[in-house]
Amino acid sequence: MKQLETKILESGKVIGDDILKVDAFLNHQIDPVLMAGVGKAFAAAFKDMGVTRILTLESSGIAPAVMTGLEMGVPVVFGRKSKSLTLTDGLYTAEVRSYTKQTVNEIAVSKNFIEKDDVILIIDDFLANGQAALGLKSLVDQAGAQIAGIGIVIEKTFQPGRALLVEQGMKMVSLARIEKFEEGRVIFAPADI
Amino acid sequence: MKQLETKILESGKVIGDDILKVDAFLNHQIDPVLMAGVGKAFAAAFKDMGVTRILTLESSGIAPAVMTGLEMGVPVVFGRKSKSLTLTDGLYTAEVRSYTKQTVNEIAVSKNFIEKDDVILIIDDFLANGQAALGLKSLVDQAGAQIAGIGIVIEKTFQPGRALLVEQGMKMVSLARIEKFEEGRVIFAPADI
Repeated sequence: MKQLETKILESGKVIGDDILKVDAFLNHQIDPVLMAGVGKAFAAAFKDMGVTRILTLESSGIAPAVMTGLEMGVPVVFGRKSKSLTLTDGLYTAEVRSYTKQTVNEIAVSKNFIEKDDVILIIDDFLANGQAALGLKSLVDQAGAQIAGIGIVIEKTFQPGRALLVEQGMKMVSLARIEKFEEGRVIFAPADI
Repeated sequence: MKQLETKILESGKVIGDDILKVDAFLNHQIDPVLMAGVGKAFAAAFKDMGVTRILTLESSGIAPAVMTGLEMGVPVVFGRKSKSLTLTDGLYTAEVRSYTKQTVNEIAVSKNFIEKDDVILIIDDFLANGQAALGLKSLVDQAGAQIAGIGIVIEKTFQPGRALLVEQGMKMVSLARIEKFEEGRVIFAPADI
């Protein structure tokens, strides 16, 4: 997605060898017009797949997911993150390891909001090691629902996330795919759309 | 806002004397079409006020804030919640007490994303005791920016939030105003628009 790649080049900040900060338009400040474009792109990529609901993760997944939901006319559910859950009645839960932060979070979604006849589109802001996406997939699996695919705003292709997800038969669409960082600059791989 | 009141009556759940759960369309599952309507309503209410940025709080404020930002053509920043912040360099921070949960959270926003010549519209999902809104106001005050006003999706009029904010000279617009709960039913006060 050209508009997104341009924004990454203009406003993204490369930190060290493998971190891209996009606080200026996705993870802290949000560019709503760009997000509307992201929503349109995901809706086009997953149309005709019978999507009934979108599942994402708080907080940075919410803006792209809601714009996609608006475009597709389906509700959006966001999984909640928690250090440790004490009450899990009525929830589907999964553990998500963060390699960057060296933490394990639990994520949870109410059983009321994923039903077994749902066809779920998973949306997330970043794909690196794929742990968050696998956690979201686990929530859908626990509900016995189907997964239409996974839409990722920014993928780091040099980390193993995509391979793990494709191995499990997931249809994956990333709007910007980063091949590497070179002297603080972002080098893109061809995007999926 | 009629469409919002109807949704509250259809899908909200009254718990005890003073809690309304709107997990079905705002706080966990999100209705994107309703949120687009919320965004249009706030944009109309605060037009011609020179708004340059919207400030909200993760996670439930993000959807209504982003839809408002899309309509007004301005960026959205979401404050982050944290149990306790150890690193506050580069952040404006404030304490927010939750009377319901008996906790104190810190909220924070990067100094990069509120500037002193900004005119900020604060958006939040709920107004009860007004503590979150006052915390957001404090972040804006620390930056030396102006506040255009506060947009609230659902206000509980029987709690002191509005009085506290109006006392400080804030323009307030609530899209649904709850007067009371009566035998598990929601009774509305006239909304601001």
